[in-house]
Amino acid sequence: MSYAAPVKDMLFVMKELADLERIAALPGFEDANLDTAQAVLDEAAKFNGEVLAPLNFEGDKNPSAWRDGEVTTTPGFKEAFRQFSEGGWQGVMHPVEYEGQGLPKLIATPCIEMLNAANMSFALCPLLTDGAIEALLTAGTEAQKQLYVPKLISGEWTGTMNLTEPQAGSDLAQVRTRAEPQGDGSYKLFGTKIFITYGEHDLAKNIVHLVLARTPDAPEGVKGISLFLVPKYNVNADGSLGERNDVLCVSIEHKLGIKASPTAVLQYGDHGGATGYLIGEESRGLEYMFIMMNAARFAVGMQGIAVADRAYQKAVAYAKERVQSRPVDGSAKQPVTIIHHPDVRRMLATMRALTEGARALAYVAAAHSDLARHHPDEKARVSHQAIYEFLVPIVKGWSTEMSIDVASLGVQVHGGMGYIEETGAAQFYRDARILTIYEGTTAIQANDLIGRKTMRDGGATAQALLAQIDQTIAALAERDGQPFASMHRHLSAGSLSLARAIEFVVAKVKSDPNAVFAGSVPYLKLAGIVLSGWQMARALLAASDKRGEDESFYSAKIATAQFYAEHVLSMAPGIEASIVSASGDQGVLALREDQF
Amino acid sequence: MSYAAPVKDMLFVMKELADLERIAALPGFEDANLDTAQAVLDEAAKFNGEVLAPLNFEGDKNPSAWRDGEVTTTPGFKEAFRQFSEGGWQGVMHPVEYEGQGLPKLIATPCIEMLNAANMSFALCPLLTDGAIEALLTAGTEAQKQLYVPKLISGEWTGTMNLTEPQAGSDLAQVRTRAEPQGDGSYKLFGTKIFITYGEHDLAKNIVHLVLARTPDAPEGVKGISLFLVPKYNVNADGSLGERNDVLCVSIEHKLGIKASPTAVLQYGDHGGATGYLIGEESRGLEYMFIMMNAARFAVGMQGIAVADRAYQKAVAYAKERVQSRPVDGSAKQPVTIIHHPDVRRMLATMRALTEGARALAYVAAAHSDLARHHPDEKARVSHQAIYEFLVPIVKGWSTEMSIDVASLGVQVHGGMGYIEETGAAQFYRDARILTIYEGTTAIQANDLIGRKTMRDGGATAQALLAQIDQTIAALAERDGQPFASMHRHLSAGSLSLARAIEFVVAKVKSDPNAVFAGSVPYLKLAGIVLSGWQMARALLAASDKRGEDESFYSAKIATAQFYAEHVLSMAPGIEASIVSASGDQGVLALREDQF
Repeated sequence: MSYAAPVKDMLFVMKELADLERIAALPGFEDANLDTAQAVLDEAAKFNGEVLAPLNFEGDKNPSAWRDGEVTTTPGFKEAFRQFSEGGWQGVMHPVEYEGQGLPKLIATPCIEMLNAANMSFALCPLLTDGAIEALLTAGTEAQKQLYVPKLISGEWTGTMNLTEPQAGSDLAQVRTRAEPQGDGSYKLFGTKIFITYGEHDLAKNIVHLVLARTPDAPEGVKGISLFLVPKYNVNADGSLGERNDVLCVSIEHKLGIKASPTAVLQYGDHGGATGYLIGEESRGLEYMFIMMNAARFAVGMQGIAVADRAYQKAVAYAKERVQSRPVDGSAKQPVTIIHHPDVRRMLATMRALTEGARALAYVAAAHSDLARHHPDEKARVSHQAIYEFLVPIVKGWSTEMSIDVASLGVQVHGGMGYIEETGAAQFYRDARILTIYEGTTAIQANDLIGRKTMRDGGATAQALLAQIDQTIAALAERDGQPFASMHRHLSAGSLSLARAIEFVVAKVKSDPNAVFAGSVPYLKLAGIVLSGWQMARALLAASDKRGEDESFYSAKIATAQFYAEHVLSMAPGIEASIVSASGDQGVLALREDQF
Repeated sequence: MSYAAPVKDMLFVMKELADLERIAALPGFEDANLDTAQAVLDEAAKFNGEVLAPLNFEGDKNPSAWRDGEVTTTPGFKEAFRQFSEGGWQGVMHPVEYEGQGLPKLIATPCIEMLNAANMSFALCPLLTDGAIEALLTAGTEAQKQLYVPKLISGEWTGTMNLTEPQAGSDLAQVRTRAEPQGDGSYKLFGTKIFITYGEHDLAKNIVHLVLARTPDAPEGVKGISLFLVPKYNVNADGSLGERNDVLCVSIEHKLGIKASPTAVLQYGDHGGATGYLIGEESRGLEYMFIMMNAARFAVGMQGIAVADRAYQKAVAYAKERVQSRPVDGSAKQPVTIIHHPDVRRMLATMRALTEGARALAYVAAAHSDLARHHPDEKARVSHQAIYEFLVPIVKGWSTEMSIDVASLGVQVHGGMGYIEETGAAQFYRDARILTIYEGTTAIQANDLIGRKTMRDGGATAQALLAQIDQTIAALAERDGQPFASMHRHLSAGSLSLARAIEFVVAKVKSDPNAVFAGSVPYLKLAGIVLSGWQMARALLAASDKRGEDESFYSAKIATAQFYAEHVLSMAPGIEASIVSASGDQGVLALREDQF
């Protein structure tokens, strides 16, 4: 099998680090216990490993193709999507009242990881549909929810997010697509949207586009943007399909990776206007879009973890099979499999440690999201929501940045074969490269982390997390042995670095915004490394307690945690230097535009 | 122009850091003064910018194609190769007696950089020819030199290196291709060679393959390998071409990048044996091949610097043109070009600093090579040769590792457009990815750095370099101002880290080879970062002295050096931790094979 979901590792994180039992005790999640989780993950592992994983390389070789406004997806995708839909996989975390399964995000998250590890290009379609469902549930009328959500969950229809225009990438204030009210409650939309993932395809009968546009009298900037629903085929009141709407896919992009996922240029209103419907209130479009985007950003972070794990599995398999050179310690006279060479071992351990650290942090974030939605105490809900929102840009930014490095190491482990496309390792290197760009570049995530997440509460949420890390550090100090000593040393240094960086950001963002934002991405990476390292420390403690129950599994957790401490967390102080020295005219901005 | 060679930066390094005047004072290099250098570089900049750079993207779109054993290169390559040859560019550093120009490696090196920045796929053909020339000059008979070298320099023929076989990648001991003596001084070769760059093409009339093979009674392992010359067309005594030889290109690879460069599978001897000639003495093949490889490894390091600079130039151009979002400091109410955003500035400065640092180190290494060959004093020659050989794996390993990061940042600066192949930024990301693999992976370079370069003289060469760094640190201490303070702080810390790493390597490599080799690649990276940082420190001192002469140019050098200190050199202590903690069972190797 080309992808075997690491169900045991996932359940370890869910149980020991994200406290699934606590989630299962929340109102509404009574059935979401460990047995349920195990059953869902086993089933997901089977489906993704058997059906979707084998199609991944096929999608790279035979990408989606455009012809006369229509897009034909990779052979096999249509049937796989039918199976995906029938299995109920779109609805795992969506409400039961709209035909979803109503499971916690903590259980849905490993399912999303598996889906993306098996086939990232395929997974983008459900990922965008999830965003559309989220936006409709948040801002749609009950009639809209009833009309659209069950069909999105069943896979009969899919959803998209239409934000970007040629002049409006990261800067949505520049959106120009316009929506003219027709007096009957509907609107006519006119404009061009680019980079629309699964903006056109043949997997489902209809596509529900959620589109940012301006009404005629709307103010300039982000405050004048509203959110509209524009179906590919108009929908009758009974849910049946009406006429083809005036939205046309004029081309799809020729991309570095995720080639099976069609990236559409959509033209609205070339033939009289595309019929659309306002979602929520006028001029609140960006706010609703952020709800979709936060869900999507978390999911993109999961894509990073997923592609990293897939690249890791492939590299491990190759390293165990490829025979080359004798061992450096003279322990054999004949060439050995390359996993016996220390540098290959280092690369594999790096891939593994980065992936496990990011996974642990993301699952913990998912649990905070569940607590934020379902905890009976409002104060607790607010606090968990704050932590979740603090973690989202880190999960998105850090998991994707590390995934590029991990995929690149995966190529390196394969040596010359890694550079040959037929080997398949290069696909992950190409696929991963989009992840730090779409749904907000790493810099956009970092700005969000600084502006909305660190500053808005004066650093309170960040400090609360640091206080929790201190407790873990105290627990490490009570244990004996090199793994604990290494982790104690590097987590202490790392959290001090993070604390000083937070202090710097909070103190300087108003008086010297250029200096702070010049270090924004290093700040996000530092937070990612330290917070993931904190989870690895918690994993170390838990694994040490359980070691006797399953020596091989838990000693691997211990070794991986130690490796993370010594080889990843150890970089934290250097990154801190990069953040606090990024000062104004003396630093990053010293080179003038004309000197580049 | 899509590539403008940074002639001024190159001359700055040649003059101020690599001491061109000292090279021009060596016997045989009397004409190689600054005026000559300027003239050669200007001419190279013109040719590469106008002729080769525009063909780079074309080569990616229309790669070399194989049909019935023949390879057709990208349209335009043949004419460009004619111009390259007529311009005398193959012969810049080769001896005048074989029709070369006999210029120092220090002048040839920027020419090689330009060639690779303009068109890396094209440049691979001359790069391999250089290697063949080098091997023939070292080990060939005078008759062989006379017969082959002038035609390789004139571009009438080209050269290749045939090392790899399916079972023999990094481990050349496994080479199985056999060479049977025919009694007339010639041999018949039989075997399969893979990954042969420009192993077949239509740019020149003949291809001179240099092939590693075993004679019938040769011992096992690397000691039984000899080097043979196998021409595609047999060569008559007068240099005219005879019959087609029994070497056939059976396929070329479908690669992630450098697509215009054909990577051939060559089959020798399927029709009675390929006629070949022994180069040098029997069983000394690997030794000669290492001469070629050392030249080629240095050149691959230059490829890293070249592709990094090209990616940087493209990213700068885009950042100065693309308008998106208002500045974070509120200095404008309208969206600005993205170069005004601190994170974009940070990315561009990172790309620039890494590229300039690696370039400076490589050019300094080239000067040591010239001194090693031409210094009148034998002791000096030996000492410069030792430094050059110490630097080669670092130039190869570090310049290529950083080039992947730089090319990746180049994609990131372009945002979503970077992921679209038509933009061209993604090509550099794909092309660069081979550089840490071919001509010896980074791990192979790191093993060489530890085994042959650090250990063989008990760390003496490494210590000599550290002593020179100390002198630079002392000079920094005498200057005032933040750039000097930052550089002093981080170069001091970095060189201490490097000193401790060297000490660790020397002390432990015999008693605990696994621990040392587990940190081999971090050791190489640390050496690359610190030694390049040392050159940036020297650049800082020189630029500061000259500042008044050209304020804009030298203040940019100062700012770039400071950036390097604060954002690159600052990572050195973290890497040291990774090296010295990579200890045996407690570290990298703690995870057993079955636990991956």
